[in-house]
Amino acid sequence: MKKHNFSSGPAILPQSVFEEASNACVDFAGMGLSILEISHRSPEYVAVYEEAISLIIELLQIPDDYEVLFLTGGASSQFFMSAMNLLEKNETAGYVDTGSWSAKAIKEAQNFGHINMLASSKEKNYTYIPKGYTIPSNLKYLHLTSNNTIFGTQYKEWPDTSVPIVCDMSSDIFSQELDIQRFGLIYAGAQKNLGPAGVTLVIIRKDILGKVERVIPTMLDYKTHIAKKSAFNTPPVFPIYVCMLTLRWLKAQGGIGVIKTKNAAKAKLLYDEIDRNSCFQGTTDKGDRSTMNATFVSTNADYDQAFLDLCNSTNISGVKGHRSVGGFRASMYNAMDIGSVEALVAVMKEFEDKL
Amino acid sequence: MKKHNFSSGPAILPQSVFEEASNACVDFAGMGLSILEISHRSPEYVAVYEEAISLIIELLQIPDDYEVLFLTGGASSQFFMSAMNLLEKNETAGYVDTGSWSAKAIKEAQNFGHINMLASSKEKNYTYIPKGYTIPSNLKYLHLTSNNTIFGTQYKEWPDTSVPIVCDMSSDIFSQELDIQRFGLIYAGAQKNLGPAGVTLVIIRKDILGKVERVIPTMLDYKTHIAKKSAFNTPPVFPIYVCMLTLRWLKAQGGIGVIKTKNAAKAKLLYDEIDRNSCFQGTTDKGDRSTMNATFVSTNADYDQAFLDLCNSTNISGVKGHRSVGGFRASMYNAMDIGSVEALVAVMKEFEDKL
Repeated sequence: MKKHNFSSGPAILPQSVFEEASNACVDFAGMGLSILEISHRSPEYVAVYEEAISLIIELLQIPDDYEVLFLTGGASSQFFMSAMNLLEKNETAGYVDTGSWSAKAIKEAQNFGHINMLASSKEKNYTYIPKGYTIPSNLKYLHLTSNNTIFGTQYKEWPDTSVPIVCDMSSDIFSQELDIQRFGLIYAGAQKNLGPAGVTLVIIRKDILGKVERVIPTMLDYKTHIAKKSAFNTPPVFPIYVCMLTLRWLKAQGGIGVIKTKNAAKAKLLYDEIDRNSCFQGTTDKGDRSTMNATFVSTNADYDQAFLDLCNSTNISGVKGHRSVGGFRASMYNAMDIGSVEALVAVMKEFEDKL
Repeated sequence: MKKHNFSSGPAILPQSVFEEASNACVDFAGMGLSILEISHRSPEYVAVYEEAISLIIELLQIPDDYEVLFLTGGASSQFFMSAMNLLEKNETAGYVDTGSWSAKAIKEAQNFGHINMLASSKEKNYTYIPKGYTIPSNLKYLHLTSNNTIFGTQYKEWPDTSVPIVCDMSSDIFSQELDIQRFGLIYAGAQKNLGPAGVTLVIIRKDILGKVERVIPTMLDYKTHIAKKSAFNTPPVFPIYVCMLTLRWLKAQGGIGVIKTKNAAKAKLLYDEIDRNSCFQGTTDKGDRSTMNATFVSTNADYDQAFLDLCNSTNISGVKGHRSVGGFRASMYNAMDIGSVEALVAVMKEFEDKL
């Protein structure tokens, strides 16, 4: 029986995508070959890649002065690649520390230039998104983490600045519309709303590149991958194919406007129950709650294992909280049907009723 | 109808692997979840990873002082990562230039230390493997490319040296036994004998690490991935799973000794026909011929398209040669049955007979 998958990532994708991907593993596009054995120079793979890029441009309304790339190495590689490509040794970039991933981005960027940490919510265990800090206009860029998967917070509006924003959107890209022009660089590990683990999306405004003096290894230079359409070396063919299928699904759903409304309804349903139910409480400031990852704890430590056991017995998977927060975390990415959130809410009510 | 897949990479894998991978895309290990949506921290994924590593250690008989890693970024990333991690700015590494991939490795390594190019076969368009050159004993390492996918040459014996060898084995790893102790570092893009595109194998002797002064980004430091068992960041779950299935298949075949014998039989069959058939000729020195990639040209330029057309009409796929050599290239990786080589040989005979 299919489980309700609340995993924080790698995460749920549409069931139709799993079925199409399954078929392609045996025979792809009538080629008489598996997608796992075809050349990345074949017309059939090139068509997959080009459709994926076109769908991203269409769904996010990306202007012509940007490039869209599929790389590897995850957001963890973008932490250093972004600074290596954009920040000269004597220049300063601004960073906002909203959780473990921001902190890692800061650590890696420090090797390449000056880092001005503009704000941090670390002193309250990252339970809110800092606001109202000053952003110097001479920063090379401002680095943000749009959604904090571990701590369950999310930016509801972007800071008001003319400095180009570099943003790690791994866990909420494609969940809401974006004014792309606010961003110099967006990066995202695929394994939440976009596809399976093993590929990283990069959206970059071309004019911010080529301005640092340092020697950059060919594979770490965004310009390499722009020139070679993400195929300077052999790309991760199958992960990119699954991204393309997921993007097709998103378009067929009605696009990002429609999915945003669905995401809001799912989040409201769950957060309303967290606030109502006497056994649970949320862990973040209400105004900063993530629509993707709802973090909550029980009001009595004795409940923790009992609630997880009840979830396990009712086909609800992946709700154990990250050790940094404890308790529970329910991730509700694009592909999750509201029926799964209803199932979780029903179990929360049942848990309260049984006490 | 299933094609005979002679693609140079991504390349043929066992049919049983395609079928198992296909099933796992819908329901993996009875979890009620697709392999594409499960956490890389789940016990089920960790078991896949550990089985893959154990199989590699067993099949290649890797001693305890080595680590086996699954990374991303392909051999193209190992070109710079190997030098970045192993070569101090004032130290010298030796490189042998046997083709396009060697040349790229040299280009990337030059940013990190001194490169002594010990030998090159470039002046004869890489049609042979250089031999008999002197290897200074003070080199930090000696870099080789074991098999040259594009040019169809392969080392039949390793140079006699006490210098640790760093070797790009992307296109022939798991095709023959190795005396691992000769090597300090072995790396290989998976997409030939090991698995699908999207993951890179690294085998490294631990004592060669930690000896350079430069700052290495966390994701580019082999020590990071050793400490975190290739899961410092989210690994490419599905590509690693498919590698594990392919390694299981290899063990079930009887291991590397058995597959080496099969590879030799396939190569002999094809090269004998290339040498016999009046329409074709080989492009490399006979003693250096690759068992993985046979390169050959026609004896009359008029034959080129006609032979490719005949291949296409008889379900033989992927034999068009690389533009650097022209003509034809038939890749016969581990998973190819000799029946496919027999089919190609039959078509070559048919082509000659029809003239």
